[in-house]
Amino acid sequence: MDKVTTEKREYLEKAALTVRTLSMDAIQKANSGHPGLPLGAAELGAALYGEILKHDPSDPKWVDRDRFILSAGHGSMFLYSLLYLSGYEDVSMDDIKAFRQVGSRAPGHPEYGVTGGVETTTGPLGQGLATAVGMAAAETMLAARFNTEEDMIVDHYTYVLCGDGCLQEGVSGEASSLAGRLGLGKLIVFYDSNKITIDGSTDLSFNEDVAARYRAYGWQVLNGSMYDFEEIFRLVAEAKAEAERPSLIVLKSIIGKGSPHKQNTADAHGAPLGADEVVATKAALRVSGDFFVSPSAVAYFKMKQTEWKKNREDWERRFAAWSRKNPEKRAEWDLFYSGAYMPASLPVYAVGDKAATRAAGNKALRSVAKANQNLVGGSADLKGPNAVGFDTDPFSMTNRLGRYIHFGVREFAMAAISNGIALHGGLRVFCSTFMVFADYLRPALRLSALMKQPVIYVLTHDSIYVGEDGPTHQPVETIASLRLIPGVTVLRPGDAEETAVAWEMAMENRDGPTVLALSRQTITVFPKGDPDWKNTIKVGAYIVRKENNPDVVIIATGSEVNLALSAATLAEESGKKVQVVSMICRELFERQPVLIREALVPPSVRVVAAEAGVKSGWEGLADAVLSIERFGESGPADKVAEHLGFTVEALAKLIEAEPV
Amino acid sequence: MDKVTTEKREYLEKAALTVRTLSMDAIQKANSGHPGLPLGAAELGAALYGEILKHDPSDPKWVDRDRFILSAGHGSMFLYSLLYLSGYEDVSMDDIKAFRQVGSRAPGHPEYGVTGGVETTTGPLGQGLATAVGMAAAETMLAARFNTEEDMIVDHYTYVLCGDGCLQEGVSGEASSLAGRLGLGKLIVFYDSNKITIDGSTDLSFNEDVAARYRAYGWQVLNGSMYDFEEIFRLVAEAKAEAERPSLIVLKSIIGKGSPHKQNTADAHGAPLGADEVVATKAALRVSGDFFVSPSAVAYFKMKQTEWKKNREDWERRFAAWSRKNPEKRAEWDLFYSGAYMPASLPVYAVGDKAATRAAGNKALRSVAKANQNLVGGSADLKGPNAVGFDTDPFSMTNRLGRYIHFGVREFAMAAISNGIALHGGLRVFCSTFMVFADYLRPALRLSALMKQPVIYVLTHDSIYVGEDGPTHQPVETIASLRLIPGVTVLRPGDAEETAVAWEMAMENRDGPTVLALSRQTITVFPKGDPDWKNTIKVGAYIVRKENNPDVVIIATGSEVNLALSAATLAEESGKKVQVVSMICRELFERQPVLIREALVPPSVRVVAAEAGVKSGWEGLADAVLSIERFGESGPADKVAEHLGFTVEALAKLIEAEPV
Repeated sequence: MDKVTTEKREYLEKAALTVRTLSMDAIQKANSGHPGLPLGAAELGAALYGEILKHDPSDPKWVDRDRFILSAGHGSMFLYSLLYLSGYEDVSMDDIKAFRQVGSRAPGHPEYGVTGGVETTTGPLGQGLATAVGMAAAETMLAARFNTEEDMIVDHYTYVLCGDGCLQEGVSGEASSLAGRLGLGKLIVFYDSNKITIDGSTDLSFNEDVAARYRAYGWQVLNGSMYDFEEIFRLVAEAKAEAERPSLIVLKSIIGKGSPHKQNTADAHGAPLGADEVVATKAALRVSGDFFVSPSAVAYFKMKQTEWKKNREDWERRFAAWSRKNPEKRAEWDLFYSGAYMPASLPVYAVGDKAATRAAGNKALRSVAKANQNLVGGSADLKGPNAVGFDTDPFSMTNRLGRYIHFGVREFAMAAISNGIALHGGLRVFCSTFMVFADYLRPALRLSALMKQPVIYVLTHDSIYVGEDGPTHQPVETIASLRLIPGVTVLRPGDAEETAVAWEMAMENRDGPTVLALSRQTITVFPKGDPDWKNTIKVGAYIVRKENNPDVVIIATGSEVNLALSAATLAEESGKKVQVVSMICRELFERQPVLIREALVPPSVRVVAAEAGVKSGWEGLADAVLSIERFGESGPADKVAEHLGFTVEALAKLIEAEPV
Repeated sequence: MDKVTTEKREYLEKAALTVRTLSMDAIQKANSGHPGLPLGAAELGAALYGEILKHDPSDPKWVDRDRFILSAGHGSMFLYSLLYLSGYEDVSMDDIKAFRQVGSRAPGHPEYGVTGGVETTTGPLGQGLATAVGMAAAETMLAARFNTEEDMIVDHYTYVLCGDGCLQEGVSGEASSLAGRLGLGKLIVFYDSNKITIDGSTDLSFNEDVAARYRAYGWQVLNGSMYDFEEIFRLVAEAKAEAERPSLIVLKSIIGKGSPHKQNTADAHGAPLGADEVVATKAALRVSGDFFVSPSAVAYFKMKQTEWKKNREDWERRFAAWSRKNPEKRAEWDLFYSGAYMPASLPVYAVGDKAATRAAGNKALRSVAKANQNLVGGSADLKGPNAVGFDTDPFSMTNRLGRYIHFGVREFAMAAISNGIALHGGLRVFCSTFMVFADYLRPALRLSALMKQPVIYVLTHDSIYVGEDGPTHQPVETIASLRLIPGVTVLRPGDAEETAVAWEMAMENRDGPTVLALSRQTITVFPKGDPDWKNTIKVGAYIVRKENNPDVVIIATGSEVNLALSAATLAEESGKKVQVVSMICRELFERQPVLIREALVPPSVRVVAAEAGVKSGWEGLADAVLSIERFGESGPADKVAEHLGFTVEALAKLIEAEPV
C-alpha cells in the first residue's frame, strides 16, 4: 500500500471518530455495553472497513469476500458502527439506537444470522479466533479445488480482532498452534494490546510474552501502533506477503481512547461511560449532538461502495467466465455450495451381524464422504478409536485437497474450527472425539446450535460400556447434557443398520448440529418390527418389537435396544406383552404430534426407558427408567454393567413392577 | 546431586526394568491399556520414586510430601509399578495382576481416593498439569503462613509428567501461563517428548516449539534425555535452584522403549503389545517369566524405605518442635487442615430488602472468609461482576499470603487449579465466572465431583435475566446440565437471606463440589412461611408460602421464587390455594425420604415447577413446568422474559390448568 494521502487520512480519522461517537452513545442509551474496545480500536476499524477488507455491503454473502471476525465480541458496537458506515442494510441507525434491545439487529454481542455482515457469533472469548482458523482452512480447501491457473475464484483473507481475554483462553492457543502447523498464511490476527482486562492491569495474571508464544506456534509476528494508519497498512501488506505463516499483528492501544477520564483504565471496559463522561469525551473529540455521524466519513464510504460493488461485479464476471471454461468444476461448485446431501449408497447388514456402531459409522462415513466430496473432517487425535478415517489424505500445508483433518489433542479448538468451516460455506464438516470429552468442546457445540450450523459431532465410546478406561472415560451424564442444548440433535443408533441411517439423518439435518452417539462395544443387528422403519425412524423412533395391546412399552436407545429385546423375551415367559421402541432421537420424538407419539407409545400403558446413563430427562416419557446415577468403574464392559446393576434382569424387573 | 555411582545406576536400571516388565504384563493380561508411556519413561520413574521424590510410602498422606502427578494418566501402569516397588500398601501384586478389573486398586486411569499415592485423578488430558499448578500454589500459600525463620514446615515440590497430548490441550497452556506469572518455582514438569500420539507422528498436527512457548510463559526450560540418570538428576537440581520460575524439563524419549518392533511407533501407545511382542520384548530385556520383579530393585527400595521413613520422622519431630514454639500457628494449622467450616456471622436482611443474590453472595463470602482464613479463591477476570472480592490482597509472586487469586480469563484452568488447591489439603477454595461459562470449565468440575473435592463454584448471571448481553451470556440449559453430574450439589438461592445460608451449606459440604447459582438482577427478600426455614432448607427445600390442603404446589428456584409468590397471589383471587416451595437444591430434595418430600409437596396435588431454564429434569417432580426451551435474546432482563413468555401470568395459567 502506498503512502496514505492527507485526504484519505482525514476520511479515515472521521470514520474512526464516528465509530467512537456511535459506540459511546449507543452504549450510553442502552445503559449497557462495552465502550473500551470500540473507542480503543476505532482507527483499525476505519482502516479495515474502509481500505483493507475486500467486501461489498450490498451483497454480504458474496462468497469471495474477506472475512472479519470480532473475536472480542463484547466490543460489538465497533462492528455495528462500521457495518452501518459501510452501508450494510441490516444495521440501520434505528438498530444502533436500539442497541441491546429485543428485536434490534444490534444485539449485545454479534450474532450470526441476526445481522448481515456478522460472520460468526462471538462473545464467549477465544472462540472467534478459533472459528476464524476454520474459515481460513476452508478457504485453502476450496481454493485448491476450484481455482485454475487462469482464475483465482477463491482468494480471500480472514481477519480477526482479538484482545487480551481471547489470548488467555486455551482454545485460542490450541487453534493457533494448529493454524501454524497448517500454514494458514491468509489468516491475519490483530491483537488489540491495551494491557487492561476487567479486573485491571493484565499484569495481575497475564505477563507472558505473547509475541514469542506466537512465534513458537510458527506464526509471523509484527508490531505496531493502533493509531498509525500508515503503519497498519504496511503491516497488513507484510502479513499478506507471508504466504506460509499466519500473522499476528500486535497493535499497542489504549482502551477507551478518547474518554478523558476513563481511557486506559478497566472502567472503560464494560460499562457505559456515564452521561458526564460522554459529554467530556465529545468535548475532547470536538463533536456535538447525539449519535454523531461525520459527513466526510459518509461521503468516503459512499465513494468506496461504488468501488466495492465494481470489484465484486468484476469477480462475478470472472466467475461466469470460469464457469464457462470449467463446466464440471462449476457443477461441483454448485453442489458444494448448496450444502445439500447427496444420497450415498449406504452399507447393508443382515440380522445377526455384529459390529460396534462406531465401526458401522465408519462404513457409513466412507460411503457418505464418497458421495459428498465436500465433506471434510477429522478427530482430536483419535482417528482409529473414533473410526473416522475415510478415503482421503490428510489436509496439510502441502495438500490442501486432503479432506481428513488431524486436529491434534484439541477438542475445543476442533469444534470451533468446525464451526468456522461450516460458516465459511462450500463445505460440510464433521469432528470427533470420545463422548465423555464432549465436555471439552461443549462451549463450541453450544455456538454450533446457537448459529444453527450443521456440524456433525461423531462421539464414540458413548457409555459405561467403554469398560476398562474407567470413570474418566465413561460418560454417564454426557448424552443427557447434550440433549439439553436447544437445537442440538442427538442420534443414538441401536445397531449397524440404524447407524447408516443416522449418518444420513445427520447429513440431511441442515438446521443445526447433530451428535452421533456411537458405541465402542460390539452390537448385534436386530430384526426390525416395522418394515418401513427407515422412514419411521425419522420421527425419532420406531417399533422394533411390535405387540398388539402391549402391557408395557420399553423405550431404549443405542446399545440398550438389544438389552430391551432380551428383557422383553424374558418378560414374555411370565406372560407380559412388551413392545420395544428404539428411540434414536428423543428431541425429535418429543416434537411429534400426539397422534404419532401414541402410534409408537400407546397411552395408558406402563412405559420403561432404558439408557446407560442418568435418568434425568426421561421422566417425562417413562414411568420407570433403567439408568445409571453414579460414575462408572474400570473393568471389562460387561463386568462394569453387572457391577452397576445395569442388566437384563434389572430391566425385566422394572417391566414387572406395578404401574404407578 | 553427585555423580551417580555404578551401584546406584544398576539399582535404578533394575527399577526401570521392573516398570517395563510389570507394565507390559499387566496390560497384556488385562488385554487393555497403554504400554507406550511406562516403557518409554521407565528411567524417569525409577529416578523419581527412587531418588528425587520426598515421600514415605508408609504414610501416603504425609502433608509435606512432594507431589507427583502423572498428567498423562493413560500411562497408569507407570504409576502403579512404581507405587508397588516403593512399598505403597495400596498397590499389591494382586492389584497389578487385576489391572483394569472391577475392584482393583489399579484401575484403568489413576483415580484419587481409590489408590494411596495417587494425588489426583488423571486421564482427561491437560488437567493433571493444571491441577499441579494448584498444588504448587497451595504449597506457597501454606509455606508463607506457617513457616518460620527457624522452621520450614511446608517445603515440598510438585512434579508432573506429561506428554504431547497434555501440551496440546488448551488448559495446560492456560495454567502454565498463570504459573509463570505467579512464579511457582517449585513446580517441575517433565515433558516426555516422544513425538508420537495416537494418530502417528506429532508432525501431523503439532510442530510448534514447545520450549519457546514455555519460555514465553516465563518458565525455565531445560533439555535432556530420558535415559541418562545423571542428566536427569542434574536437570532436577537446576530446576530446584531456580526459585522464581517453574521449570519444564524436556526429555527426549522413545515411546514403548524396549519393544523391538513397536517402540517409536503409535502402535505402542494405547494397546497391549500382544503376546508375541511381549515375548520379544522380554527377550530383548533379558528377563523371563511373567510379572518379573527385579530382586535388586526390591532391595534398593527396601533400603530407601528406611531412609524415607527416617526423613519423614525427622519432619514429624521438627513439626512437634515448631508446634511447641508456635502454639497459635499450630492451632491455626489444625483448623486449616481439618477443612471444617468455622461458622461465620452471616449478614442479616429484612423482608423487602432488595439485592441481587450475587451481591448477597459477596456479603456472605466476606463473612465466611473472615471466619475461615483458609478460604482462598477468585474469578476468571470477573471479580466485580461475580462479586467475589473480599478482605485480602491478590495472591502473587511477592505476596503469598494474598488469598484472592486473579485467574485471568481462563475458566478451565481456574477450575483445575482449584481442584489442585483442594487436593493439596490445608485450604478451602472457591472459583467463579458467569454461569454460562460453566461450559468452559465443565471437564474440571466433573473431576471435582469424581474426586469428591469440596470446590465451591460461584456462578453468577444465572439465567436469561442477564439481559442485554444476549444468548451467548444467558444460560438456559446450564443449571440443568450441572445437576446431571453425579455428586455435584447445585444451590440456587431465592433471595439474599437464602444466599447467606447457601454459602454456609457450600462450606459445610465436604463431600464434593457445590455450585452457587446467583442472580445478576436484583431480587426482593420475601417472607418465609416456615419459621424454622434455615434448618429445613438443608433438606433442599422449604415452604415459603404455606396453605392447608393446597390445590397446587409451585416449586420454584432462585429468582423464580418471587415470581411464584406473585402467581400464587394472582391465583388466590380466582379461589385457588397455592403453596409455594423454594427448592434451593433439587438433588438434595430428591434424596430425602418420602415422608419429608411429602411434608413439602403433598401427594395427589398438582405440582408446577418454575425455573428460568429448560424443563428437562423437572418432569419427575412436576405436572407442568414454566420453562424456557430456546436460547435467549439481547435486551433488558424484564423485556427478554416477557418476550420469552416467562411471566407471572404464564405461571398463573399453569396453576389454573386442569391436573393431568
